Amino acid sequence: MQKNISYSGFKKSAVMPGPNDAALFTDLYELTMLQAYFHENMNRQAVFSLFVRRLPPERNFLLACGLDTVLAYLENLTFTRDSLDYLGSLGQFSDSFLEWLGHFRFTGSVRAVPEGTPVFANEPILEITASLPQAQLIETFVMNQIHLQTLLASKAWRVVTAAPGKTVVDFGARRMHGMDAALKAARAFHIAGVAATSNVLAGKLYDLPVTGTMAHSYIQAHDNETDAFKAFVSSFPETVLLVDTYDTLAGIQKVIELADTLGDDFRVKGVRLDSGDLLILSRKVRQALDNAGLRQVEIFVSGNLDEYRIADLIKAGAPINGFGVGTHMGVSLDVPCMDIVYKLCEYAGEGKLKLSRGKPVLPGAKQVFRTEQDGRFVKDIIGCMDENLPGRPLLERVMQNGQRLPAGFRDLNAIRNDAEIQTARLPEPIADIHPADPPFPVEISPTLTALQQQIKKTFLKQ
Amino acid sequence: MQKNISYSGFKKSAVMPGPNDAALFTDLYELTMLQAYFHENMNRQAVFSLFVRRLPPERNFLLACGLDTVLAYLENLTFTRDSLDYLGSLGQFSDSFLEWLGHFRFTGSVRAVPEGTPVFANEPILEITASLPQAQLIETFVMNQIHLQTLLASKAWRVVTAAPGKTVVDFGARRMHGMDAALKAARAFHIAGVAATSNVLAGKLYDLPVTGTMAHSYIQAHDNETDAFKAFVSSFPETVLLVDTYDTLAGIQKVIELADTLGDDFRVKGVRLDSGDLLILSRKVRQALDNAGLRQVEIFVSGNLDEYRIADLIKAGAPINGFGVGTHMGVSLDVPCMDIVYKLCEYAGEGKLKLSRGKPVLPGAKQVFRTEQDGRFVKDIIGCMDENLPGRPLLERVMQNGQRLPAGFRDLNAIRNDAEIQTARLPEPIADIHPADPPFPVEISPTLTALQQQIKKTFLKQ
Repeated sequence: MQKNISYSGFKKSAVMPGPNDAALFTDLYELTMLQAYFHENMNRQAVFSLFVRRLPPERNFLLACGLDTVLAYLENLTFTRDSLDYLGSLGQFSDSFLEWLGHFRFTGSVRAVPEGTPVFANEPILEITASLPQAQLIETFVMNQIHLQTLLASKAWRVVTAAPGKTVVDFGARRMHGMDAALKAARAFHIAGVAATSNVLAGKLYDLPVTGTMAHSYIQAHDNETDAFKAFVSSFPETVLLVDTYDTLAGIQKVIELADTLGDDFRVKGVRLDSGDLLILSRKVRQALDNAGLRQVEIFVSGNLDEYRIADLIKAGAPINGFGVGTHMGVSLDVPCMDIVYKLCEYAGEGKLKLSRGKPVLPGAKQVFRTEQDGRFVKDIIGCMDENLPGRPLLERVMQNGQRLPAGFRDLNAIRNDAEIQTARLPEPIADIHPADPPFPVEISPTLTALQQQIKKTFLKQ
Repeated sequence: MQKNISYSGFKKSAVMPGPNDAALFTDLYELTMLQAYFHENMNRQAVFSLFVRRLPPERNFLLACGLDTVLAYLENLTFTRDSLDYLGSLGQFSDSFLEWLGHFRFTGSVRAVPEGTPVFANEPILEITASLPQAQLIETFVMNQIHLQTLLASKAWRVVTAAPGKTVVDFGARRMHGMDAALKAARAFHIAGVAATSNVLAGKLYDLPVTGTMAHSYIQAHDNETDAFKAFVSSFPETVLLVDTYDTLAGIQKVIELADTLGDDFRVKGVRLDSGDLLILSRKVRQALDNAGLRQVEIFVSGNLDEYRIADLIKAGAPINGFGVGTHMGVSLDVPCMDIVYKLCEYAGEGKLKLSRGKPVLPGAKQVFRTEQDGRFVKDIIGCMDENLPGRPLLERVMQNGQRLPAGFRDLNAIRNDAEIQTARLPEPIADIHPADPPFPVEISPTLTALQQQIKKTFLKQ
């Protein structure tokens, strides 16, 4: 129930804007360009390509993610009356343009690398073929979502990889950048192999396993730790008890006492350590539990973890069963953004490129061909879409005439499985969390190179 | 119009979840704790405090932001039938608890530092006083929003400060972390002094000035730059032309030719450079424009800008009128997250603290007293809420019994003005973008210190 309080001069803000507004989630320049195109009658077919210009030094590859959100957006993209009225109020747009915008639908096609596929610099993650205004308008949203979800899936894969055979769960909702990020993150993390999320809404939206037990505040609200453990276990017998609120080793003794008291009714699954030296503490805790005959009680740790700290703990042989990873994975702390771009590469059948220094664009619709040998990826070739090159073509047609094709509907768990299979085929140094030297080889086909040179020459002659 | 395509096994994802779902945007452990509290009848009054444990070395202060979203959330917090059904499906929650949850409303009170106020480490940004379950449930959402918005307002203030007298605009939507972040960012940036945003939806939601002109793709879609400039200017005579698609200095010659052709009809406001050495290019461009009698044409620049690069350009005397700042401000690249926490500090009238190493909590409801001298802030004292200390108390009561008080309704432009006034009162080294040594002095009052010691003693005696 929305309360209708209003104070004069106060514009009440929504907790989160509704999906009807998504068409306005765009940079103003997309709309000014659209009006110019409208008045110029420039609506012939364009091809735009979305790719990451260069890999961050901390990433040997990226795990493509976010396509499903993009397709959902494109299927439902319309301007509400309310949105059109707002645009009219800006005083920059003509009535005839706004009327045209009122009928706007995305009727183009999308070719994309399936979610969960490893990709490299300059490889198109998706390509849009549509009338120029349609392909232009969607730039901001499409970049925003593919950037975020690919960024986070790529980070999470590293965290999961650092903890082979262990459980990694997502605790990041509280410090990720807003609600949308935290929700999309949980889905991206699932694709990357994360076992569960603490984010209940993400669990509901994406059918993900959800997990969580208790905070320090629960312990503190009770008179003492023992009372808190007893009370919580009576509601959730198979829980994980948080033992570091006051002193980790004293906390463990209370768990052991509880096991003595409850006897066969003691079904606590594990304990969680959230502070201190996790290597030393996990060893002492393991020993104390084992000495008390509680070998089945597992040890979970959390607190400022990332792939590097986890790898160190694993290497040192820390007896840890699971990791709760929050902020560092949630904001992709070492690489919070990437040089992702969405570039016009063809208009009205002519290849396009840009000559700005250090920012080359490969012209025309493209395909990525991935060669495999003995079950491992060997190299990629970026070629023209219609080329017939050795290797498996990565981009699939997922939407046509604004409608998803069967390849555009992929079950989330199938994507997760596929991500596991695909990343297992990366050369070992590329699948490592440390920088690979040399990087994975990505070539440009001779035909595409020739096309690029030819367009450049034609242009410079003008 | 939502299309109803469905493929078996495919759960269609929303572009963005609706605001009705906000109650489920929480960590699962909040709900498991709530059930435990429910069955234990633990519903006495609790005080939780939200603060940043330590300032990042790159920040001399933070600009508090996000309260309005928190209050909107608290006012509207209910569990829909759909949400309760989902929770029931998890098999962890009792029917009686879920029934209770169906009646859940936030009826507590909120005391907070006004948005746009500079704050320091350990100072409560807000404190919640409510029944224990109410105050607990909201943790995840409240932290998520105050963290994000404070992070971004603090970063944007630095960017604006680095460009005194110049225009800074937000171009970040495409690489910020999701839609929610980009929208809340535009509002936070406005508070911090950013002049306008490119994000149309943010403009609509928060009544912000929106801005934007053209992308490289617009130029490329035309046969040549001159045609593109002419066409765009006929739709938007007072636009800013993007001149670096092929070669910046050649682009400027085309602008000058256009001015010659159009004569008095030439009303182009400026040109934008998005690549290359911005210092050298802006000088050459300024000279070329001036030589052509186009002194009124301003120079805007963009491309990987942050407060440090802007400060360098300003220091070198670059003839630049405005800066378009995107990703670096949008993800707060140097500090993408902070050590923000939400801690129980009182339950049933008793102060609470946590003894985990390096993670101290100040007990009880608190107040921050800010002393001023000769128009500058001198020091802060964190004291107990009811203490009478010298200085201006920063926390105000903004919500009571779940209803906003007048202080909880603040006009966005009033907040922006207030932020400007408040930050102008910071000591000069603190208001600098470089680290201040010593940092701004924040003391703990003797009464609060004594309370902390007393609780610690009582606890350790147990």
